[in-house]
Amino acid sequence: MAFARKPVTGMKDILPREMEIRDYCIGLVKQTYKTFGFTPVETPCVEHIENLQSKQGGENEKLIFKILKRGEKLRLEEAKEEADLVDSGLRYDLTLPLARYYANNAGSLPKPFKALQIGPVWRADRPQRGRFRQFYQCDIDILGDPSPLAETELILATTGMLAKLGFSGFTVRINDRRILKAMAAAAGIGAEGQEQAFITLDKLDKIGPDGVKAELLEVGFTQEQVDAFAGLAACGNDLPAMADALGENLDRAAYENLTQIMQAVDGAGDFALVFDPTLVRGMGYYTGTIFEVGVEGFPGSVAGGGRYDGMIGRFTGQETPACGFSIGFERIVTILLEQGFTPPAAGGKKAFLVEKGMDADRLKAVFAEAQAERGAGAVVLVSVMNKNKKFQKEQLAAEGYLDVKEFYVRPL
Amino acid sequence: MAFARKPVTGMKDILPREMEIRDYCIGLVKQTYKTFGFTPVETPCVEHIENLQSKQGGENEKLIFKILKRGEKLRLEEAKEEADLVDSGLRYDLTLPLARYYANNAGSLPKPFKALQIGPVWRADRPQRGRFRQFYQCDIDILGDPSPLAETELILATTGMLAKLGFSGFTVRINDRRILKAMAAAAGIGAEGQEQAFITLDKLDKIGPDGVKAELLEVGFTQEQVDAFAGLAACGNDLPAMADALGENLDRAAYENLTQIMQAVDGAGDFALVFDPTLVRGMGYYTGTIFEVGVEGFPGSVAGGGRYDGMIGRFTGQETPACGFSIGFERIVTILLEQGFTPPAAGGKKAFLVEKGMDADRLKAVFAEAQAERGAGAVVLVSVMNKNKKFQKEQLAAEGYLDVKEFYVRPL
Repeated sequence: MAFARKPVTGMKDILPREMEIRDYCIGLVKQTYKTFGFTPVETPCVEHIENLQSKQGGENEKLIFKILKRGEKLRLEEAKEEADLVDSGLRYDLTLPLARYYANNAGSLPKPFKALQIGPVWRADRPQRGRFRQFYQCDIDILGDPSPLAETELILATTGMLAKLGFSGFTVRINDRRILKAMAAAAGIGAEGQEQAFITLDKLDKIGPDGVKAELLEVGFTQEQVDAFAGLAACGNDLPAMADALGENLDRAAYENLTQIMQAVDGAGDFALVFDPTLVRGMGYYTGTIFEVGVEGFPGSVAGGGRYDGMIGRFTGQETPACGFSIGFERIVTILLEQGFTPPAAGGKKAFLVEKGMDADRLKAVFAEAQAERGAGAVVLVSVMNKNKKFQKEQLAAEGYLDVKEFYVRPL
Repeated sequence: MAFARKPVTGMKDILPREMEIRDYCIGLVKQTYKTFGFTPVETPCVEHIENLQSKQGGENEKLIFKILKRGEKLRLEEAKEEADLVDSGLRYDLTLPLARYYANNAGSLPKPFKALQIGPVWRADRPQRGRFRQFYQCDIDILGDPSPLAETELILATTGMLAKLGFSGFTVRINDRRILKAMAAAAGIGAEGQEQAFITLDKLDKIGPDGVKAELLEVGFTQEQVDAFAGLAACGNDLPAMADALGENLDRAAYENLTQIMQAVDGAGDFALVFDPTLVRGMGYYTGTIFEVGVEGFPGSVAGGGRYDGMIGRFTGQETPACGFSIGFERIVTILLEQGFTPPAAGGKKAFLVEKGMDADRLKAVFAEAQAERGAGAVVLVSVMNKNKKFQKEQLAAEGYLDVKEFYVRPL
């Protein structure tokens, strides 16, 4: 077969300029989150197929890259169904492997456990511009802490990290699934219809308030329910006013929890924190607080998360409160690339050009000089001097090597 | 199906203590290699199956984790052979994807191109202690530089990095495939038998000099050939003496090249550099200089590499001189773990324990104090105070949080 030069469909080679930004972001993430006591962990990229298909992954379970069984020769003629050939797949997120990791290692982990994960995940999505089948996720999760300190820490860590990346004036929107449920209940929507009402409300960004109302009617809610629910959603960013409007439907614990988080985070940095009763977050596994970070000028969000107290227990059989925040790593890298962001460079960039035929002693002196500069933090490129030195220096300048030193066989 | 808690066969969860060492090593590798002008690059973990099976990967091609085709429903009943089901697999090394990357992107990369890659690779080896089916490789490669500056830079970068990790008194052994060929030729071994002679010589560590002689005889070399070849191999570490012994079989260019590298590197750090005529390196693709780093007290090597001028061209159709050095990342992490290595910590580790029921204003002050400490580089863990505070503090101490500050609802 011919050698293929392009990456496999939907995946990409990362070029030096993007790589520099990615490495910078990863470094900053690790450094910042570490000061909050988050511990980096890593799970294998390959996960049991039965775990990947355990109905916790939603739509992602349809997008799994499946891996052929190893160990014996592939018995194609005897295989009756896919399960005869496949026993593992590539992870589609970092949350499911974290649940397995926690179940496997809880005995040797601190409680609460503050986990930091950065790594690639794979989804066989339809290839489209700016969306790749291998991409990085970057998650922080606090397992085993039911208190609002968890949410507060997650929000402070994430906003602090975004500020260090040069983002300012961004907005953290916050809500609680229990507020959403109270809104639905106050509008006369019973438990069985609530998830549908939230799914529709979640489309507000795309279809607008009239679109939401129309869809709510279309899926079968009464005019009265729709008006009441949409009215509460349009209530604005005043949490105490929402509490009044919800009356006895309000979950007091949720309200106090949310108030405490908002007061603790308020004014902690150069960002706005707003209660947003229209914030839903797609994943059905959230049980309490939910939050999302938006940056002006860029649609959608750059980070999001929430509390999912039920999920770990469903995997492990042991109830474990959990709360997580995921930054949109690829999104942030794309924004920084588009902004022409350049990570701050420590030291300078120098190129040493060495004429061919230099004797070993002089060459040794050149390398010693390079080593000394490197020890002081500079980037030093040692290269053979080309015949077309002018062209070579132009190329070096394009890579940021403006400081060029030339070494000749006979000193000039 | 039941939820599986253990990782898939042969792979492992990385616990916090190991992760701390891994992150530290990766940081040091990136930081050190960057000062030499190496540019980080990344390729997808998933590679075309035809590239993986293009006969450059040797034995590794038998160990590929193969991925089922995506896009249409699996047509098991129509599949006649594996190729009907599989179009990609997980990469088993970083060199092959680098060749594809270079073929795909050479137009937008500097020349020579100094690439740094760190990332996971997968091999379905028989599971055994200390050997995993997912492991990290860490490679630096210089593509497009035929001069001995490339080897010199690679050796300086790698030894400098090992020294920063606390290794000292290690040994860099160096040889050249062209010296090995001259040794074989001088012993009367023709081109067709040379690779076999090298494979046997490569077992010297395991079977000793008598074992090597016995195997050389066994595979069909004459007593005279074996005595001459083994005699040259036992010649010792004196390169000029070897040159004399080889006489007209010596490749002068190889000799001068090797001399220049050795002189440039000699004395550049706290390690011994020795010419070793018994150094072979397993991979048949090497064409010139080869080198390996050993650490006293640990069998085998912690890093190795060499020049492989033919390989990239075979993939890309365009001749490209290439030279690379790979550090045994997992090996080094294991050694550091066994040595009880702890990465130097910046700032201190502090735990803030907060009594339950604190009002928002006081809580906000606690978080503000934590943020100030974090800004100054400390790690600060904010946790709810447990009922059993003594036990909690013991646990915190075990994690390195010896400095514990307590915050009460009513100040004491």
